[in-house]
This record gives sequence, structure tokens and C-alpha cells, in this order.
Amino acid sequence: MNEPIIKELEEEDIWNGFLTSLDSLRQASNIDKEKAKEVFQKINTNKDHIIAVAELDGKIVGSTTLLIEQKFIHNGGLVGHIEDVVVDKDFQGKKIGEKIMKYLLEIAKNRGCYKTILDCTDDVKPFYEKLGFKHIANELRFDHN
Amino acid sequence: MNEPIIKELEEEDIWNGFLTSLDSLRQASNIDKEKAKEVFQKINTNKDHIIAVAELDGKIVGSTTLLIEQKFIHNGGLVGHIEDVVVDKDFQGKKIGEKIMKYLLEIAKNRGCYKTILDCTDDVKPFYEKLGFKHIANELRFDHN
Repeated sequence: MNEPIIKELEEEDIWNGFLTSLDSLRQASNIDKEKAKEVFQKINTNKDHIIAVAELDGKIVGSTTLLIEQKFIHNGGLVGHIEDVVVDKDFQGKKIGEKIMKYLLEIAKNRGCYKTILDCTDDVKPFYEKLGFKHIANELRFDHN
Repeated sequence: MNEPIIKELEEEDIWNGFLTSLDSLRQASNIDKEKAKEVFQKINTNKDHIIAVAELDGKIVGSTTLLIEQKFIHNGGLVGHIEDVVVDKDFQGKKIGEKIMKYLLEIAKNRGCYKTILDCTDDVKPFYEKLGFKHIANELRFDHN
């Protein structure tokens, strides 16, 4: 297998595997084309919202998001938040997710985050623990409807 | 007891109880004055980063943060993230935290978030469950150092 290229999401990636990779997490590729462009523009102009993708043989096969949060606590410290870790189901088990995670953890570190947090279900906890994450609390959800 | 006023953080609130309230969560009031101003400016110009405070008899006694995240999934949906829920230890048990939370959940709903999530330890889970939150997963943490 060729080595994946890990990089930040570019507009042309959206329809070159990015949305269909997200489908492995939750149906995403049915998004309206104009809406997807609008979402990209909004995220792309926010330097604290970084989407990393893995490109393999010219196609996006996985992605992960890093949000950088400005706090008052920790002397005005920064916290990284990892969201939407996904690898296309046809390319799982090839360490692609691990490579994207390490790429984003490096960015979080370089930006000065003192910690990076994420939420995950029990089944994928070992994946994150291998990367150095530790269980510390619970994730709770409120549905607006 | 007078009723607290729930509102968005203003610059003059920072040194009028906001930072000392945060001390009940984690030492915050030792932040450099210029740094605190800089943090405020950064947060204040980001409409997706909202800090709500409770003012009681002219002094800030509690606060909570809402971050609004733009997703590609959920047809370009928005997710609310609650952070740093705190009430000054001298004013706890007076439903102030509940009022701040309801204020921010209303904002999240009005902004169109389909869900709002937060991380918490076991001891404060019942507080959030009473507000309608449900346990769904684990919070994991990575320390950069």
C-alpha cells in the first residue's frame, strides 16, 4: 500500500472522497453542494478550526477535525477538541486514523494547547489510549427539538 | 435572595467577579490583566463563542461557555459545546448554574444546534441529567508536554 498524504482539507477534496469518508461516521454526502461550499468557507476562514484529511492514491479516505478553544483559565490557555475521526470503511485497519490523529496532535501542540480532549464510545477507546489519551470523565448530550 | 441577571460577559465583568468565580473551577484570577483583555477581545469577536454570566447584586457569581461548532455532517449542522460551568462557591445551591445553563441552551436552540454536548465527572452528572442531558460516551484527555 502507498503511504497516505496527511494534509489540511482543501475545497476540491470535498467531492473527492471527503464527504463519502464521512458517510462511514454518519450520512454526509447527501449534503447540498452549495451548502457544503458555504460550510467549507466558514471553516476555512477560522484558523481555530482545522480539518485534516488522508489522501491515498489521489482520493480522500479519512479525516478528523481539531477545534482550538481559547480559555480564561490556565492563564488564558488553549484547549484542543478532536471531532469526527473517520476512515472510509474500505480503508480501515491500515493506521490511517492514527496518522491523521498524530498530525493534529502535533498542530495542537505547536499552537500551544495544554491538552487535547475528545469524546468516544467504549469500542474505540483502545485506539485513543494507544495514542496516549486517558479516560477522565463522561460525555453527556442534550437534544434540541 | 434577589434574582440573578443572566447575560453575556462584558469586559467590565472580568474584574467584577468573573475571574474569581472561575477560581472555584480552577485558579483563574491570577491571569495577567493585559492577557485577560486579549482573551476577552478574541472571544468577543467570535460569535460562535458565547460566555454567559450570572450577576447578583452587581457582582458576577457564575459563568458558563457555549461554543458553536459548524459540521459537514447533519447536512452542515451545528453542535453546541458547553464548557467551564461554574458558580462561585459562596453562591452554590441557589439554582444559579441551572439558570445560566438554560440561558445557553436557549441560545444553542435559537442558533439551530441539533444537539449540545458537554463533559462532566460523575459527581455533577445528576445536575445535567435534571436539565435533560443523557450520558452517551466517554471523555478522553491527552496532555501536551
